[in-house]
Amino acid sequence: LQYAASEGLPELRQWVAAELGRQGARVAPDQVLITTGSQQGLDLLAKVLLDAGSRVLVETPTYLGALQAFAPMQPRFDSVTSDEGGITAQGLREQLQNGEHPRFVYLLPNFQNPSGRMQDEARRQQLIAVCREHGLPIVEDNPYGELWYDAPPPAPLLARWPEGVLYLGSFSKILAPGLRLGYVIAPRELYPKLLQAKQAADLHTPGFNQRVVHEVIKGGFLQQHVPTIRARYKAQRDAMAAALKQHMPAGVHWQAPAGGMFFWLTLPAHLDATALLPRAVEGGMAYVPGATFFPGRPEHHANTLRLSFVTATPAQIDAAVATLAHLLAHQ
Amino acid sequence: LQYAASEGLPELRQWVAAELGRQGARVAPDQVLITTGSQQGLDLLAKVLLDAGSRVLVETPTYLGALQAFAPMQPRFDSVTSDEGGITAQGLREQLQNGEHPRFVYLLPNFQNPSGRMQDEARRQQLIAVCREHGLPIVEDNPYGELWYDAPPPAPLLARWPEGVLYLGSFSKILAPGLRLGYVIAPRELYPKLLQAKQAADLHTPGFNQRVVHEVIKGGFLQQHVPTIRARYKAQRDAMAAALKQHMPAGVHWQAPAGGMFFWLTLPAHLDATALLPRAVEGGMAYVPGATFFPGRPEHHANTLRLSFVTATPAQIDAAVATLAHLLAHQ
Repeated sequence: LQYAASEGLPELRQWVAAELGRQGARVAPDQVLITTGSQQGLDLLAKVLLDAGSRVLVETPTYLGALQAFAPMQPRFDSVTSDEGGITAQGLREQLQNGEHPRFVYLLPNFQNPSGRMQDEARRQQLIAVCREHGLPIVEDNPYGELWYDAPPPAPLLARWPEGVLYLGSFSKILAPGLRLGYVIAPRELYPKLLQAKQAADLHTPGFNQRVVHEVIKGGFLQQHVPTIRARYKAQRDAMAAALKQHMPAGVHWQAPAGGMFFWLTLPAHLDATALLPRAVEGGMAYVPGATFFPGRPEHHANTLRLSFVTATPAQIDAAVATLAHLLAHQ
Repeated sequence: LQYAASEGLPELRQWVAAELGRQGARVAPDQVLITTGSQQGLDLLAKVLLDAGSRVLVETPTYLGALQAFAPMQPRFDSVTSDEGGITAQGLREQLQNGEHPRFVYLLPNFQNPSGRMQDEARRQQLIAVCREHGLPIVEDNPYGELWYDAPPPAPLLARWPEGVLYLGSFSKILAPGLRLGYVIAPRELYPKLLQAKQAADLHTPGFNQRVVHEVIKGGFLQQHVPTIRARYKAQRDAMAAALKQHMPAGVHWQAPAGGMFFWLTLPAHLDATALLPRAVEGGMAYVPGATFFPGRPEHHANTLRLSFVTATPAQIDAAVATLAHLLAHQ
């Protein structure tokens, strides 16, 4: 319970390095910085990599929490053209031809929040090629990688370009979010600056939590536990896919995610998800309006919303989707 | 172990508000923001109150960790003339007559890190009067207030000017630093911005830690425990005071602190504490060179150093001070 090293508990850093190794990324324990949730990793990266006016490339849509974590440094966000497989290589090239060189591109390759989409093997290769060619660092955020329901996702971007990728991982989605435990993998030349930012931010992540988590996972607990999460969430995902298919009126579009926690819905263009939310809540269900996930021109995306399927039973999911469908059908 | 409110555990916020009430400050629970150590409080305040080039007033010397926490926002530090009782009202007035209006003055009134000094009742009244008159917000950092060895310190600045003081507290020094648990008390109009910064920084402080601490302290544990810390540290402080008196050569100056953890030493002007440190470490003792606690012109303060007495026994303290004295006597 005493003060501890800002880098994190050595045994836990070793565990993380070994785990990334199993995913094909060669990581040394001294490249691992333990953080107070991966949200803090975003905060530290912003402090080290961004100044006021710095350009940051993001997906369309992108994770709201990252926008919030980067905001105190006052960067400028540019949204890269994206499709069902994430940002496109063409979209990235176009952004790189215009304006100041971006400090980094922020990517969430596995079952993205909010869209649920995944970058396939070909897309990852294309994006890495463009980023290498242009010397564009990647911030790879991977909270959901273990939550696959059909097949494991392709190897992380980190495994493909170790010197150009900053990788964020988390125990929140596979063990417990309330412990606030995540990590950043950084190239060696950047690590000391991140460590300095970490020390200034909260000295170190609670040692108690690090020890508890290491004690729980060191004997292989996650190998038994994560499959039970996958089985549960897969059933919930399937329930939501079936409910959407059964209940939704024409003009509402979605794609079932291959993992993660979210379905992303596009409503007919005249509907405004933010305006409809109070009535959905009255009906007993809730969602996150999609506009907030777009840093520029959110008003052009008022007809989008995010549904989560992980904290409700299949029966609750069916009832909630039916409620939403009824609301949409009567606009 | 689930995600929790960014504000913190309600019971803990109530406990903090009641505790501040016992110290004479009227605080509502909804003014309390639980942070991942009070170091994070400094980080959040910087994000909300500072921009690049903002002016911040600090003590001479001041807490290094605060300088580090504020640094990512790129403020400009001005050191206020200080004496054995902290910054002087006259020094504060002089700073307020020159240049841009400072965003705040950062004060550590009780047993300051690194100097060990305390603001007495008269000084507090003077400083509050100047700050009120000029509309200068105060950031009051109070990690050591409970660690008094002779008499309790005067009421906090927060109790004297609730609408102008942001107060930082911590469980690190009275319970356990490894849990990383602190808090900020903020005026109501500033609270929402701090909360937003908190959410972006790490979503919330680990709920597990908040529950553990609340469980430990709710029945009055600290009323029994803190006196045992005081008794132990007082003996260590007395041992260090006696050892300094016995061993130190002429030309070395200090003042015994009335609480906290530190003695502040001023060496003869020609000595450089940073240069001497490796030889002290060879001799089996260590200290923190004082220069780092001065944001401007640290080279003018090379002959200062900070000694901590809280993690060593009286016998170890005597031996370490004798080692340092021997080293200094032979320069």
